[in-house]
Amino acid sequence: MRKVLWLSTVIFVCFGALQAAPDSDSGKPQYTSDNKLLAPKNFRQWIFLSSGLGMSYSPQGADHLMFTNVFVPQWAYSEFLKSGKWPEQTMFVVEERGSQTKGSINKAGHFQTDLMGYGVEVKDSTHFPEKWAYFNFEENTKSAQANPKAACFDCHEQHAAVEHSFTQFYPTLKPVAKKFGTYKQERENVD
Amino acid sequence: MRKVLWLSTVIFVCFGALQAAPDSDSGKPQYTSDNKLLAPKNFRQWIFLSSGLGMSYSPQGADHLMFTNVFVPQWAYSEFLKSGKWPEQTMFVVEERGSQTKGSINKAGHFQTDLMGYGVEVKDSTHFPEKWAYFNFEENTKSAQANPKAACFDCHEQHAAVEHSFTQFYPTLKPVAKKFGTYKQERENVD
Repeated sequence: MRKVLWLSTVIFVCFGALQAAPDSDSGKPQYTSDNKLLAPKNFRQWIFLSSGLGMSYSPQGADHLMFTNVFVPQWAYSEFLKSGKWPEQTMFVVEERGSQTKGSINKAGHFQTDLMGYGVEVKDSTHFPEKWAYFNFEENTKSAQANPKAACFDCHEQHAAVEHSFTQFYPTLKPVAKKFGTYKQERENVD
Repeated sequence: MRKVLWLSTVIFVCFGALQAAPDSDSGKPQYTSDNKLLAPKNFRQWIFLSSGLGMSYSPQGADHLMFTNVFVPQWAYSEFLKSGKWPEQTMFVVEERGSQTKGSINKAGHFQTDLMGYGVEVKDSTHFPEKWAYFNFEENTKSAQANPKAACFDCHEQHAAVEHSFTQFYPTLKPVAKKFGTYKQERENVD
């Protein structure tokens, strides 16, 4: 019996040590004491959902043609694959990068260049009564206050295909959400 | 002493069990008996390097405007961060996806749609005397033979900024390679 207990302890310590590393950069939202979101770390090592170029909700498009790369942490992505839903504390990062056509051997189309900033979407009802909150960061911003509701929340509320996520633009996640019945097909309709 | 040995065994088994999962989908090249590359699994869960839209090495561009998303396995990415070099058995996947402008609330620019196929680049001198080999896959291809050298190899040999990788188009890896002195700056020059 003592041996069994001791074995349990060793295994517990062993797994505990292995879990320690991810915990230090957990891909979950961290806040300052006044509810500002701390800049997420290492999101370029999260799961890539998709990218766009110059996507715009107005017909004239954006002034600067930027790429947008969307990432979610591994743990939230795994949960979504199992349920078609985003768990509490999910974070999305939308990274904005410049675009360039002529460079090295490239002569047409566009490739990505410098970081221009990034937005973060958080699902966290313990910090935000409306559950979803939106933040903007520049490269060296350490923390950011949630944007006013009219800035992002309303559009996500009205147009996103799965909860507040624009899954209609994430081609590998669409079939997952459809399988679990969480996909609002009508959100694909052109306005 | 017996206790120490036993502890080592438990820890070994414990770590062994945890390593088993990644081993089953190791992000390293697997081949058929006649040296065809097996389709890599789950590369959408690898590290994203960058994406392009309609990138082309000829001025008139491509017929179909496609997005290209580039991924490498976590283990190879970690090695690159430490050395600026790609380890043996590194695989790159270049995924090709369709693009669309009008859809849901999007009115300008481009978002990604269906998978059109993908290319794989492998660094593996035990299988290929010239170290680097190139393969093309469609969505359901199970294995593929290396392309003739003229198809991809020569261009990567002559124009890639780090070994055979087009790091000039991967903005987060450029500074890493520059730090380790493995970046060929002249490969950025426009032809």
